[in-house]
Amino acid sequence: MSSIAGTHRPDRPTTPERAGSAPTIAQIAEELGVSVPTVSKVLNGRSDVAPATRRRVEEALERHRYRRRRPGAPRDGAALIDLVFHQLGSTWSMEIIRGVEEAAAAARTSVILSELGGRHRPPRAWLETTLARPPAGVLLVASQLTEAQRHRLVSRSIPFVVIDTDGDTPADVPTVGSDNWSGGLAATRHLVELGHRRIAAIGGPSDMLCSRARLDGYRSALAAGGIAVDPALLDSGNFYVEPGYAAARRLLDRPDRPTAIFAGSDMQAIGVLRAAQELGLRVPHDVSVVGYDDLPLAQWTTPALTTVRQPLTEMAATATRILLDLAAGRQPELTRVNLATELVVRETTAPPPARG
Amino acid sequence: MSSIAGTHRPDRPTTPERAGSAPTIAQIAEELGVSVPTVSKVLNGRSDVAPATRRRVEEALERHRYRRRRPGAPRDGAALIDLVFHQLGSTWSMEIIRGVEEAAAAARTSVILSELGGRHRPPRAWLETTLARPPAGVLLVASQLTEAQRHRLVSRSIPFVVIDTDGDTPADVPTVGSDNWSGGLAATRHLVELGHRRIAAIGGPSDMLCSRARLDGYRSALAAGGIAVDPALLDSGNFYVEPGYAAARRLLDRPDRPTAIFAGSDMQAIGVLRAAQELGLRVPHDVSVVGYDDLPLAQWTTPALTTVRQPLTEMAATATRILLDLAAGRQPELTRVNLATELVVRETTAPPPARG
Repeated sequence: MSSIAGTHRPDRPTTPERAGSAPTIAQIAEELGVSVPTVSKVLNGRSDVAPATRRRVEEALERHRYRRRRPGAPRDGAALIDLVFHQLGSTWSMEIIRGVEEAAAAARTSVILSELGGRHRPPRAWLETTLARPPAGVLLVASQLTEAQRHRLVSRSIPFVVIDTDGDTPADVPTVGSDNWSGGLAATRHLVELGHRRIAAIGGPSDMLCSRARLDGYRSALAAGGIAVDPALLDSGNFYVEPGYAAARRLLDRPDRPTAIFAGSDMQAIGVLRAAQELGLRVPHDVSVVGYDDLPLAQWTTPALTTVRQPLTEMAATATRILLDLAAGRQPELTRVNLATELVVRETTAPPPARG
Repeated sequence: MSSIAGTHRPDRPTTPERAGSAPTIAQIAEELGVSVPTVSKVLNGRSDVAPATRRRVEEALERHRYRRRRPGAPRDGAALIDLVFHQLGSTWSMEIIRGVEEAAAAARTSVILSELGGRHRPPRAWLETTLARPPAGVLLVASQLTEAQRHRLVSRSIPFVVIDTDGDTPADVPTVGSDNWSGGLAATRHLVELGHRRIAAIGGPSDMLCSRARLDGYRSALAAGGIAVDPALLDSGNFYVEPGYAAARRLLDRPDRPTAIFAGSDMQAIGVLRAAQELGLRVPHDVSVVGYDDLPLAQWTTPALTTVRQPLTEMAATATRILLDLAAGRQPELTRVNLATELVVRETTAPPPARG
């Protein structure tokens, strides 16, 4: 079941062919007064080209909007795609990897895994290595390319798809995510319906769009319940356990502490459970907790975690199939997809404690 | 700090050169009455060779112990290694992946990730795909190659290293693991020293050597404490949460239930914590629990898990460096390495309850 955020065709032709008027490599070489092999080396990402020459060739390729003719289909099993994480972390990453592996294996395609060390923009070295390969396509997880990087991939007819965008992705870039706003709404509405009025929220990094969408869903659910947003009950941190723990310690140490906490991820929620336990607060009797993601571990926390399920492996598999379609010159049915999220009620939510 | 299980040189030369007497591809082709390109295609894993011909060529390559001359060093950033899991699972896999990525990135090498769908022996299709690539080397996690598969990789000078062997790996295969026997010993000795006499153990799959070694360490610690092994207190299952939960339900439902459980993995231990909670048993007051692995989550369970730390990322990075040495024709200092394990005492272990 998927809700579609919008369907856009990428602005590049999906069966890449040079228009009659587009220059050949030979014409570009002649224009610049360099050899054909030099232009070819730059296109192939080889390192044995002087930096100044490389820059001139790149500029000319860009200026002419050069698009490489797609080489023949790769040999059986030799096709490769790149899967790029901004950071390899918890089982969240593992769920994504499993979805990509599954869809890639079905297409007899192998997956090259890399990590950007926490950066949301791939560094220059990443692009050089990728272009030297080059893969049939690139999957970016919670990362974005700069405009220049996008153009360099486009000029070589290497398609790319973003999984779970971290911000405003240009309309011509295919993306697969989940409906974060509805997820935030459902989690908070559940707490409001249980009778909670003081509901805290822990967000993810403020530069990640998915997190902002969830918090907007939270605000809408509060508004619908006639509850004003109390800025003192909003905290944030990255999606790991420690920031969830630290935020919960701050929130639950308040004299007017919240009776419920909506965490930004299941990992954060595990930190919240720990903070509550240390403060002698029982979950859900004294404080309710809702997580986000529904990782396999969510059912095994003590007590078992109420959370919002995002279909991570399905998102990853969908993104992979879109990428493989683009790589094969087929137009995918959808290129901007948000899969539905779903509230999973377990044991960490209950009505608030009676007022003392 | 590493304890060295033994140092063996692989039986193949690490700077692959054909001896003067070894046949060339042309000689093999002539002997079989096939063309040179046909032999070459088989060596490159191409699929466009008739099965019968392929078999004859493979046999001749094997009979002559043909070793391909190593091609020139790959272009900058173009080097690839294969990382093969029998199954992608919990954060255990993620820790391994992070170690491999780290060591590979330092050597400007990219990592192709694949999964064997739970099999400990790669299927034929895996080898064909790999040979069609081919990578600079192969890392196998808890998997083993058949003798025929090993020979085919050796004949193409593709080195391989096994991380955390699942059984008896031939002496000429480089391996990196951890000291499982000492880990099992340390966990159980800790419980004996706390005064426990009825100590249960949950093993992993019985065909995995690492699990058998841990159980032998458990038996030795019991013997040293003058405690007989009670077969009724031994249970087993795979390394995930659910089998740990199921085993703990069986063990803790017994009238003469154990006062401590040594789980085969942290994931199993999370299942044990859950089972204890459902049965109204407090950890560690009524029952002590020790895990295995020290995954990042172990410190965040409630209560925080006492466990045996294996240095998973370090094991993976070490295996990767050995592989890259072999791929570059360098002889690694060590090729059979077991890194040390370490008991990490947290909150799930305490003296047994006083007898009623």
